[in-house]
Amino acid sequence: MEEQIKTALAEIQRGSFEIIDEEAITKLLKNYFENGTSFYVKAGFDPTAPDLHLGHTVLLQKLATFQKFGGIVQFLIGDFTASIGDPTGKSETRKVLSNEQVLTNAQSYKEQVFKILDESKTQVVFNSHWLNDLGAGGLIALASNLTVARMLERDDFAKRYAANTPIAVSEFTYPLLQGYDSVHLKSDVEIGGTDQKFNLLMGRTLQKAYNCNKQQAVLMMPILEGLDGVQKMSKSLGNYIGVTDEPNDMFGKVLSISDELMWRYYELLSSKSLKEIEALKTGVEDGSLHPKTVKDALAMEIVDRYHGQGAGEKACEEFKKVFAQKDIPTELKEVEVESGSWICQVLVDTALEPSTSQARRDIKAGAVKINQEKVVDDKLNLETGEFILQKGKKNFVKVIVKG
Amino acid sequence: MEEQIKTALAEIQRGSFEIIDEEAITKLLKNYFENGTSFYVKAGFDPTAPDLHLGHTVLLQKLATFQKFGGIVQFLIGDFTASIGDPTGKSETRKVLSNEQVLTNAQSYKEQVFKILDESKTQVVFNSHWLNDLGAGGLIALASNLTVARMLERDDFAKRYAANTPIAVSEFTYPLLQGYDSVHLKSDVEIGGTDQKFNLLMGRTLQKAYNCNKQQAVLMMPILEGLDGVQKMSKSLGNYIGVTDEPNDMFGKVLSISDELMWRYYELLSSKSLKEIEALKTGVEDGSLHPKTVKDALAMEIVDRYHGQGAGEKACEEFKKVFAQKDIPTELKEVEVESGSWICQVLVDTALEPSTSQARRDIKAGAVKINQEKVVDDKLNLETGEFILQKGKKNFVKVIVKG
Repeated sequence: MEEQIKTALAEIQRGSFEIIDEEAITKLLKNYFENGTSFYVKAGFDPTAPDLHLGHTVLLQKLATFQKFGGIVQFLIGDFTASIGDPTGKSETRKVLSNEQVLTNAQSYKEQVFKILDESKTQVVFNSHWLNDLGAGGLIALASNLTVARMLERDDFAKRYAANTPIAVSEFTYPLLQGYDSVHLKSDVEIGGTDQKFNLLMGRTLQKAYNCNKQQAVLMMPILEGLDGVQKMSKSLGNYIGVTDEPNDMFGKVLSISDELMWRYYELLSSKSLKEIEALKTGVEDGSLHPKTVKDALAMEIVDRYHGQGAGEKACEEFKKVFAQKDIPTELKEVEVESGSWICQVLVDTALEPSTSQARRDIKAGAVKINQEKVVDDKLNLETGEFILQKGKKNFVKVIVKG
Repeated sequence: MEEQIKTALAEIQRGSFEIIDEEAITKLLKNYFENGTSFYVKAGFDPTAPDLHLGHTVLLQKLATFQKFGGIVQFLIGDFTASIGDPTGKSETRKVLSNEQVLTNAQSYKEQVFKILDESKTQVVFNSHWLNDLGAGGLIALASNLTVARMLERDDFAKRYAANTPIAVSEFTYPLLQGYDSVHLKSDVEIGGTDQKFNLLMGRTLQKAYNCNKQQAVLMMPILEGLDGVQKMSKSLGNYIGVTDEPNDMFGKVLSISDELMWRYYELLSSKSLKEIEALKTGVEDGSLHPKTVKDALAMEIVDRYHGQGAGEKACEEFKKVFAQKDIPTELKEVEVESGSWICQVLVDTALEPSTSQARRDIKAGAVKINQEKVVDDKLNLETGEFILQKGKKNFVKVIVKG
């Protein structure tokens, strides 16, 4: 029993940035292992069209971990504020969504998240269902529980207030609504990003103010680094792996990450237990395992998750075949260059060409490829990322362009 | 026409502390005199049980003035927030009122205010009728129109924030709701006390934000001084004339005020035109009118207003009869003393007694009266106010105790 709780707690703590009221979580786990009593773990999601990448799944993986130890996930779609929009028309991000759009987006969420979450232990809930009934009076009563000074302590509000950047009074209501969701849902735990600390704690404050018999524990997950290992994973930075990416793309992208980042991804994204991961690390350290093998395993696990059991192995074979067909060696020489470097200079630096003028001629002749596509512009400057640079049929170098 | 507008505007300005957008009021008057078009004048009132004194009627008198020149009064009973109360239980003044209580109180308001307002030109409205429909979403949309910084500029908020005195987030919503009432009611003018400036201007701000075709003008009335002529009229200070006071009490209280305060009351409370009041002043100045006669007229006007035509004259006669019966001369010698003065010393200072020891003996013998009640305590110190001090049956002095 003690051992079970200890193991579960370690899995829950794994990769987390901060936990508030860990004691409460321990009690929930104890009650689960002793009496089989489940508990509620809440996480809120935008009602806009989801297009999840692995950065988003860090939270979902953590929810899945809770499900293994008695957690019933309250997958909250925050559709209430989306029904309001921004009457001042100042905010691009606050567009009004129709009820149909919300339901369509919710369906899309389900298709994506149930590849990670256990559907039988998940309640998908919409906060408009109770916030519409709250009324203006209920909202005012809610707002009486918090002071303006306390609200202005929130990190981003404090900074904006100090910088004379306008804060609309309406913005004060959003943390209150998030907290009230926890009151209504009787959540035992809420999970969110590190930037959500103030809002997550609001649930605790309001559960106390509304005389709930509990105050939710709070678990904050860090932001996942993108493929470059430096900046956060994001669509706009192009350093992401989307959960709807094709198996071969997904596999190739995982393979492109550094060995160091690989361990980070194991911690935050893998379903492997801490013990199993420790064993892999030991294997690499004592030389019994090649890092490439361990990376293949991670890539296969991730592909399997989003494309079904066996898809990972298929992608792995496909990857090797393509490399073999194109005579791309699976173990490439790696060269680091600065972001913005000129393609011709990079060809010289990587020893693929003897001179920039020769490089320019070969580009014009169509003999230079990046990621197997012909380079047409001999003035090209390379942006941050990792590429396979090829000259002719047999000369390959992996170029790592640092930001 | 020009003359009519000028006269009306002068009556509207009379006694006011500040008018914002006087030009708009001039236009409304012009439209009324030219086309007979009426306009809306809003004033908000607490839904708690009304027990009005003359301090409250300053605003009502001003509304009555507007009614003479085309104004339709929107007598707004702010029952919406009363239905919320204060869930934190911190505020004594924010108790929840039932719908029945609100209606009972509204009935009581009507009985009192229609002694001043023209019922045919008054709409009694309850803001719960539209604010209940606003919903939490509508309130958030409303709150998006104002910034936190702007809200914290409000005088009392600014002071409390600087002094670290808690301001509940809910308090930010009240000015917004008051402003929204003006949007809903399409008010052309709003009247309030000088302490209401921020909230009154909110109506202008929100009418603009909600694309109303108007922005209400704002008229602020000063706070009426109580019988002492120094502090504001209030129940708790005991320096008030209640509108439900008995005719004789009311008459006597008006007579007790100083001549200076009498002119202030004429300005803020009388229905007499500015021209008529000017004539009275001239009469007093050139000696053709005794100030006592002018005070009698004011007292009679006020008694008539709350107890019906003729009640004032009756009270005046009654007052004179009582004085005659008790041999109190209607014209008394006046003596000013400092607050806290010892009764025996005052008796000597007013020449009613030759010495404090004689004064003490007479008090013990029951021969000294204040306002026709025997003084029993020979250690009494007089507090601020005006009293009729009497020794024996025929010796009277009016004592004015300065604060």
